[in-house]
Amino acid sequence: MTTNEDAIRATAVAAKQAGGKLARLGPERRSALLRALAEALRDPRHRQAIFAANAADLERARAEGVASPLVKRLGLDAGKLDGVCDGLDQLAAMPDLVGGVTLRRELDEGLVLERVTCPLGLLGVVFESRPDALVQIVGLAWKSGNAVLLKGGREALGTNRALSQIVGQVLSGAGLDPRAAVLLEGREEVNAVLGLHGLVEVIVARGSSEFVRHIQQSSQIPVMGHAAGVCHLYVHAAADPAMAARLAVDGKTTYPAACNATETLLWDAGAGAALDACLAALQKAGVEIRGDAATRARAPGIKAAGDEDFGFEFGANVIAIKQVDGLDGALVHIAAHGSKHTEAIVTEDAAAAERFLAEVDAAGVYHNASTRFADGYRYGLGAEVGISTDKLHARGPVGIDGLLTYRWLLRGHGQETAAYGPGKRAFRHRDLP
Amino acid sequence: MTTNEDAIRATAVAAKQAGGKLARLGPERRSALLRALAEALRDPRHRQAIFAANAADLERARAEGVASPLVKRLGLDAGKLDGVCDGLDQLAAMPDLVGGVTLRRELDEGLVLERVTCPLGLLGVVFESRPDALVQIVGLAWKSGNAVLLKGGREALGTNRALSQIVGQVLSGAGLDPRAAVLLEGREEVNAVLGLHGLVEVIVARGSSEFVRHIQQSSQIPVMGHAAGVCHLYVHAAADPAMAARLAVDGKTTYPAACNATETLLWDAGAGAALDACLAALQKAGVEIRGDAATRARAPGIKAAGDEDFGFEFGANVIAIKQVDGLDGALVHIAAHGSKHTEAIVTEDAAAAERFLAEVDAAGVYHNASTRFADGYRYGLGAEVGISTDKLHARGPVGIDGLLTYRWLLRGHGQETAAYGPGKRAFRHRDLP
Repeated sequence: MTTNEDAIRATAVAAKQAGGKLARLGPERRSALLRALAEALRDPRHRQAIFAANAADLERARAEGVASPLVKRLGLDAGKLDGVCDGLDQLAAMPDLVGGVTLRRELDEGLVLERVTCPLGLLGVVFESRPDALVQIVGLAWKSGNAVLLKGGREALGTNRALSQIVGQVLSGAGLDPRAAVLLEGREEVNAVLGLHGLVEVIVARGSSEFVRHIQQSSQIPVMGHAAGVCHLYVHAAADPAMAARLAVDGKTTYPAACNATETLLWDAGAGAALDACLAALQKAGVEIRGDAATRARAPGIKAAGDEDFGFEFGANVIAIKQVDGLDGALVHIAAHGSKHTEAIVTEDAAAAERFLAEVDAAGVYHNASTRFADGYRYGLGAEVGISTDKLHARGPVGIDGLLTYRWLLRGHGQETAAYGPGKRAFRHRDLP
Repeated sequence: MTTNEDAIRATAVAAKQAGGKLARLGPERRSALLRALAEALRDPRHRQAIFAANAADLERARAEGVASPLVKRLGLDAGKLDGVCDGLDQLAAMPDLVGGVTLRRELDEGLVLERVTCPLGLLGVVFESRPDALVQIVGLAWKSGNAVLLKGGREALGTNRALSQIVGQVLSGAGLDPRAAVLLEGREEVNAVLGLHGLVEVIVARGSSEFVRHIQQSSQIPVMGHAAGVCHLYVHAAADPAMAARLAVDGKTTYPAACNATETLLWDAGAGAALDACLAALQKAGVEIRGDAATRARAPGIKAAGDEDFGFEFGANVIAIKQVDGLDGALVHIAAHGSKHTEAIVTEDAAAAERFLAEVDAAGVYHNASTRFADGYRYGLGAEVGISTDKLHARGPVGIDGLLTYRWLLRGHGQETAAYGPGKRAFRHRDLP
């Protein structure tokens, strides 16, 4: 172990201890902390420092030729920061789940089992670009009583430093150890964190698919994150053409770099009019369209889609379009090419919609709504640490729930297991209020 | 990919499809299936076949010199089988959670979000020895609407074949595809299953620590299981000596090979009388005692414990005993040497007990109760697929809950995300009944 790894381990141990205090703080003081952070981030002087740092990060990124979707995510304007502050206030107002008793069961007379919610302990969060993620994650960590080690992208370092300085001031101002939320810098530090198995309970990875996969392959610690976001909009034969067009444009263009952006549009042979409406609206919105043969037959001017365009996350203003053989064809295509993130159907046929909702295996399955709704803030979770495409622990937008675990507490009077069994004492298993 | 891997993949695909039918069967028919299995396992003719197969497995294991804890786990007598059948009936009577709506939220007018419980899909279960685990796991898989690929230990193959034949008959008898629960044989088959990332959703591993760790290192699929079960009984200064002695004997001797057996006894300097009672009772029960210097000072005849005896899972009638410096000393020792499985305090001091319950980070934390209570059946979960010492997804005994995930369903009327935001529409986020 190098000196650097020792230093990171010491930082992690200090963070975990500071987090323990956060966990024991109680609901009121945890909420006050969140509101204090929102207030600090609304302070014009702080904003000035944040926006100046962000402008410098953006300028450097453009000068260094950083890819355009990354630059897009890097920008932190007043609107995004307002959204983050609203999220903090929303989190502060939400019920506090730490210490909640989710089950109380009398196993036998004087032998009572409780299942009690508790923080995971110490989170490691690595995220690319989007500096607003830093504040969201800190908010969720505090609300759930967890300490957090944060590592942002190199391109956002100035903005992250400005934000993390304010985070530290808010902690100190509340009489808490600022090491409950530590910003790490440099690749060696994050590699050291990925090795802290048994100390860091979960790694939250936010960024591109390749980034998340890289993190997953670099650590024995469980990684929460979406390895890919390939969302489909399926335009059913009974789709309202105008609605289909609006949902395609919203799904594709409002934030093409987001994981919940629509990447592929599927359409039924019977949905030709809806397809035409989608094509016109997408072209008007400046989207590059890549179609299969059936799609190009209706719109000869568009590019030909290759096999590699399906199941692909463009992260840009590009969409792939393919005709499928009805609902069954759509289900087969999505099962084969989807990433279990969010899938949507547009139709006025309620039975088709319900079958789609019942049979698609994805974190989010939508009827007549944009795939872009897959987001912790929009779901009313206050914020999200990310969107999970795994099936275990947390699925879809991960809010407070995903950062908590539980312990089973058993209070007895000296009961032995040998007293129970066939021909002996029987368990009561009576749930208590 | 070899032909064998192709065959296993085809088996897995068939199992997953058969599982889909199980998921859509509805609560009544799923419960009836569980009761039918319990009935079949109570049928004397079936029992005769099972016990004969088990006797042959036991004889072969002894002849081959299989380690004694494994042989102990391999035995399947009427008592164990009765317990398993009771567990199946208990599961059948429990609420069915598949398709349950755990959250219903109006995001806006006509835009309703639901979080709906669903099966994981296809489980891979690898277990050593204990053939009763096969039935428990099948019961939990059926109740949760999951298909399952099972691989038992080589030493239990005859018993597992007998049990799995009955399982298949019960499925067929209910008009279902027997491939919803498939018994695999041979190491190549299990290796192929460990490679089915994206098809098998979770691997449940039951067996020794080394076994679970081996499985974890051999697969990219998440593994649920306890890598170790090192449970402590802490005898506080205010412990009732007779109670401490009973809990030590119950924790150590009722099933020394179990993961919830007590491996280490810690005692306060002020708990000398309780220690003496424990030592006398453990010696009377034939337990090999290994003590630190302070313990040997009170019982000169016992063996000296080495550092390697602490934090060690004996899996046999052996216990390590050490004096600690009060509650703080016990907390430090457990944090350093425990496996986050189950930890217990014996004390009449309520404040000390509550501090222990609040501060120990383990799946189970007990006051005045035997560590052996850590079990799905005893907790009233009906059965367990295993005991998880991980913090994510499921912790402690894993019952039905641990085999379920959820999907977010969103039903709208063409809503776009671009309509919401500062100065635009606001979300309602109103929870519905």
